[in-house]
Amino acid sequence: MNLAARRAAVVGTGLIGGSIGHALRARGWHVSGVDADPARAERAVSLGALDAVGPDPDAELTFVATPVGAVVDVATAALAAGGVVTDVGSVKAPIVERVHHPRFVGGHPMAGSEQEGLDGATPDLFTGAVWVLTPVEGTDAAAYSLVQSTVASFGAEVLAVPPHEHDRLVAMVSHVPHLTAATLMSIAAERADEQRALLRLAAGGFRDMTRIAAGHPGIWPDICAENRDAITEALDHLLDALQTTRSLVASADRRGLLDVLERARAARMNLPRPAGVPVDLAELRVPVPDRPGVLAEITTLATELDVNIIDLEIAHSTEGAKGVLIVVIEAGKADRLSGGLVARGYRPTIGSLE
Amino acid sequence: MNLAARRAAVVGTGLIGGSIGHALRARGWHVSGVDADPARAERAVSLGALDAVGPDPDAELTFVATPVGAVVDVATAALAAGGVVTDVGSVKAPIVERVHHPRFVGGHPMAGSEQEGLDGATPDLFTGAVWVLTPVEGTDAAAYSLVQSTVASFGAEVLAVPPHEHDRLVAMVSHVPHLTAATLMSIAAERADEQRALLRLAAGGFRDMTRIAAGHPGIWPDICAENRDAITEALDHLLDALQTTRSLVASADRRGLLDVLERARAARMNLPRPAGVPVDLAELRVPVPDRPGVLAEITTLATELDVNIIDLEIAHSTEGAKGVLIVVIEAGKADRLSGGLVARGYRPTIGSLE
Repeated sequence: MNLAARRAAVVGTGLIGGSIGHALRARGWHVSGVDADPARAERAVSLGALDAVGPDPDAELTFVATPVGAVVDVATAALAAGGVVTDVGSVKAPIVERVHHPRFVGGHPMAGSEQEGLDGATPDLFTGAVWVLTPVEGTDAAAYSLVQSTVASFGAEVLAVPPHEHDRLVAMVSHVPHLTAATLMSIAAERADEQRALLRLAAGGFRDMTRIAAGHPGIWPDICAENRDAITEALDHLLDALQTTRSLVASADRRGLLDVLERARAARMNLPRPAGVPVDLAELRVPVPDRPGVLAEITTLATELDVNIIDLEIAHSTEGAKGVLIVVIEAGKADRLSGGLVARGYRPTIGSLE
Repeated sequence: MNLAARRAAVVGTGLIGGSIGHALRARGWHVSGVDADPARAERAVSLGALDAVGPDPDAELTFVATPVGAVVDVATAALAAGGVVTDVGSVKAPIVERVHHPRFVGGHPMAGSEQEGLDGATPDLFTGAVWVLTPVEGTDAAAYSLVQSTVASFGAEVLAVPPHEHDRLVAMVSHVPHLTAATLMSIAAERADEQRALLRLAAGGFRDMTRIAAGHPGIWPDICAENRDAITEALDHLLDALQTTRSLVASADRRGLLDVLERARAARMNLPRPAGVPVDLAELRVPVPDRPGVLAEITTLATELDVNIIDLEIAHSTEGAKGVLIVVIEAGKADRLSGGLVARGYRPTIGSLE
């Protein structure tokens, strides 16, 4: 054991807590940890995510990676024991207000959830991810600096955002989309009880929109309770906007509808790519015949041509059953890959992104 | 030219019309066609989708593959010229009611849109796709039988559905999801104008939900006008259900929220796969490290192991920046591919589908 090592602690050893343990140890920290399930903490040691099970009174930095409903109590106890404390909860204002301590820095890494499994934990989970920190007026500068430099050392991109603003933002881009997907899926399923054919007609677009509704609901009641105000505000905003869209349909206002759809299209095309990828991207759309080996052929060709595939998906049109492979690559290499694909009989089209 | 060939006509030579032409010719029909853009009809001949440009007074079957707003006039003219007439419009009741003729059979192949390009047209676009037909009381049985057997010969799965029921179904699984995605994208973009960080926080779930909003809006004002009643009804249903979800959040009703989310999860897991794929499927989830060549390695391994990849996507968790490759394969081959992946250092997990 390295007696000179800086000492950190992790409370909650799921995907996030385990990955924090791995990342800290990879950078020379001594990491001890606990979990509500003692067997899971032991397992974290055997997987190399922790040095030891148990509290560490000498930890200079404690990461609270419990479910969001437990953060306030755990963080308060950790602050009483000493050192700087940060958390990973997906809601910030209610936590920051209740913990209210100069040595506490609210945080939220945008990389998986605290209830996913320890077995998926890796030291590089946060490389290129956005990690939000929510310092407030009373936050100690040295405490903030310690948390900031530590998570930056994991390869994360740190964004400092006021806690209320964070909560409004995630309500809009994460919580309300999740609730909307679940609600849409529920009413489509209700109607399917009357008419079995319904879901046979559900093609790619519907599948994409409702995919997140297939996730485990376990964490959501907590998140909805903690972020109630921001979620109801964002839902009201969505309800108003949908009511407006409904009026455009009811009055057959083609110009108005086209405006809404054009604005949405432009905004969707301009959605920033995840951090850490080159700015100048191109999208190759390749109609994919329904035969084995085609994915291997295309992706192998990309490797042969030294074209790094940044993102890849099989898209279906709103009504399509068959696939178009969408391959996102550096714009400067689009012609190269396109040429290779044409040479093999594919018919790719190139679009630019951003 | 085969003088004994059965004769068909296609009006509108985009993706759908062109693919119908290809599919008919591949089955020995003589196909003539026209398009609002005469150059596109000529191009359809040069691409092999048509035998000839122009009307054919001897066509026993005419496919109307124009944008939905033009179907009634074109179909009425074709019926006056003789033969059986069907269409491919994505709205059925208003068309079927206005055309109102024993030799007209409303249709809607769920495979792409009439405004996508002729260049993507292929003879097998409809293989395994659902093709809805909407016979009504006055429909001539021989006319229905001709359309039914012809589209079935393309490899499509024919579902007969009453026109109003079709319109309610596609409103729920296609039109309202599209409008909701566009509306959600629009309000998120509005808020992003205040706070640039917003869309940096938009991870995989939001991307999935809003993907269809990136599509060309051109066809939607027509569709919304034609299917106005069913769309407003389905939107009202969604607005009511979202209002209920909002109440559950506002009253912190954890049990009620969990019920909604569990129901949605079960329904999403039970969503039928597209037609034509084996019933017994498994899903391999493979955490994907961020390095070049990994897609090629995994998909090539599948080919080497004779495992046909039925569907593939890179999924992100609601908040994740990194990917998990989701590979859908026959359940009986899941262990084989999983073994191969483990041998190469991946950590796949196997889930069953349906």
